[in-house]
Amino acid sequence: MKLIILFGGASFEHEISIVSAITVKEKLQNSFELEFVFCDQDHTFYLVPAEKMKSKTFSSGEHKKFQKLQLSHGCFSFTKMFSKGEVFGTILNLIHGADGEDGTIASILDFYGFSFIGPRVDASVFSYDKRYTKMLAKEKGVKYIQYEVLHNKEQKDIELSLPVIIKPVRLGSSIGVSIVKEMDELDYALDVAYEFDSSVIVEPFIEGVKEYNLAGYIANRELHLSIVEEPQKQEFLDFEKKYMDFSRSSHVNQADISDELIAKLQNAFKMIYTDMFEGALIRCDFFVIDDEVYLNEINPIPGSMANYLFDDFAKAIEDLANSLPQKKRAQVKYEYIDSISKAKGK
Amino acid sequence: MKLIILFGGASFEHEISIVSAITVKEKLQNSFELEFVFCDQDHTFYLVPAEKMKSKTFSSGEHKKFQKLQLSHGCFSFTKMFSKGEVFGTILNLIHGADGEDGTIASILDFYGFSFIGPRVDASVFSYDKRYTKMLAKEKGVKYIQYEVLHNKEQKDIELSLPVIIKPVRLGSSIGVSIVKEMDELDYALDVAYEFDSSVIVEPFIEGVKEYNLAGYIANRELHLSIVEEPQKQEFLDFEKKYMDFSRSSHVNQADISDELIAKLQNAFKMIYTDMFEGALIRCDFFVIDDEVYLNEINPIPGSMANYLFDDFAKAIEDLANSLPQKKRAQVKYEYIDSISKAKGK
Repeated sequence: MKLIILFGGASFEHEISIVSAITVKEKLQNSFELEFVFCDQDHTFYLVPAEKMKSKTFSSGEHKKFQKLQLSHGCFSFTKMFSKGEVFGTILNLIHGADGEDGTIASILDFYGFSFIGPRVDASVFSYDKRYTKMLAKEKGVKYIQYEVLHNKEQKDIELSLPVIIKPVRLGSSIGVSIVKEMDELDYALDVAYEFDSSVIVEPFIEGVKEYNLAGYIANRELHLSIVEEPQKQEFLDFEKKYMDFSRSSHVNQADISDELIAKLQNAFKMIYTDMFEGALIRCDFFVIDDEVYLNEINPIPGSMANYLFDDFAKAIEDLANSLPQKKRAQVKYEYIDSISKAKGK
Repeated sequence: MKLIILFGGASFEHEISIVSAITVKEKLQNSFELEFVFCDQDHTFYLVPAEKMKSKTFSSGEHKKFQKLQLSHGCFSFTKMFSKGEVFGTILNLIHGADGEDGTIASILDFYGFSFIGPRVDASVFSYDKRYTKMLAKEKGVKYIQYEVLHNKEQKDIELSLPVIIKPVRLGSSIGVSIVKEMDELDYALDVAYEFDSSVIVEPFIEGVKEYNLAGYIANRELHLSIVEEPQKQEFLDFEKKYMDFSRSSHVNQADISDELIAKLQNAFKMIYTDMFEGALIRCDFFVIDDEVYLNEINPIPGSMANYLFDDFAKAIEDLANSLPQKKRAQVKYEYIDSISKAKGK
């Protein structure tokens, strides 16, 4: 089966997308016929030879020597001096953050009629902006941590009591995130977050809160769930640690928790996923407080596709690739124009 | 000033987009240097000569003889035998329904760096799906009519008492909409709606409810509002009537209502528009029940741009065109890859 790994993007998470793509290559190269399409920060697409899938290729700019690609109907295409070529296949959208997770790539792939693994436009919008994720959780009856939103154009005090955690509303991978324990740290933390977004979200920072991650996808109308992981304990992952995290590939063990708690986590995942995330393999990160499950965030394109949470990752991707939703296009028949023209005698 | 009218799309509202474009041409041709780009149902773009802007051009397929265009960075481009050409300008997105209002066109125009009038991807998603519009109203503190959602894969009775109005969740222009007054009409009404969407929304049908429309936009950080219109009274506009409605161009009068009610409608509009619809001229349709304002729907690309609600429509479009938001692109510096390569001694 052919699979095109699409990665890069004009995003603060551009570099971790490269790391993810390299990791996923390792995990899938024995099961798929892989192609690699890199979207650079100027939104130009390049076809990257498999042996050049090293981070240095991109940081050195070597990729600019590779074949440039155009978006065409159902494929990427290129023109050489006397020939034309096309790159066909199901796409695995591995562009983290802006472009990949904000709805842009989903829209483009739908418009050009590609079959693709990744969140659709609605799913992207609701998971990319943390305010909308809260709205979604509320709508679906999944608990979430209370929050406030601040905008850089207005001067406003926070109402939550310290400590709090401050995040740009629209970024993942801990970029621009700070924990504020003393009031005099607040302004600096806000400045850092405003570097990345005009709005920030403030939540209580709960010391030592239990955190559990769970990934899954729907294929053949059935929900397939990964094991539940209790991620490495530390206050929170800063960008550099998370960056290394994106190259994870060793399988982890199921968290040592009760079956009841596992069922609660699985149920919350199902409520979030259903009717919105079809076509994507997502990871939900939850907090557990007093045995209750709270949604922390939705990663609709998790780092290295959360490969380490699945017993048979290649099989998961194959099942999903064989069960992708396609956007239906309306058929235009010009019935109204025709009937109105007739009525006018034209 | 150059303005490119983008219209058509693979949408059930394709034909009314053509009607809208012809109407807007009439209203703007003396104030702008206009170009016309048609997106056909196969997602091919054509450059349409101004004198060919007649509905017959498209229903007859004549447009297929015109110059095909490619999406390029910041422009539409074409290649002729020995020459290349580019069509530059601010875009006015006039594609109603799918493609234009569902986030697809917004994403594509953002990705290619166009400056455009129209809803951005978040605004599109929240106004295109009626379920998300309700969520948005709730979040913003604007009243909305109670509702239920049904899916065609499940058999479920409706809980609301008759009469009800049944609508596909994701379509505008009254397509697939029915009023159900007797229980034996329900199945047929659901079948009609399911022709267009896998989910439908059911709301109480309120006989003789007062309806008011209001359009507006933010330019130079200031909200500009149209007059309030009380639309033509009839049970509801079916598609053919609405179709004709999209060619409206005569200015209407302000509804004969109290200043207090006007202020309430304006306030609800402002709450919906702010922080989501920047870059678009939208029309909100409200119900008024017992002097309270309820959001009915958001039209982020209203028929013929609601030109008939503005005293100086050309000026409104010009102001908006000069005040469009641009999506910021992250600068990629490869700092992490470089520092990690260094640490590894590579």
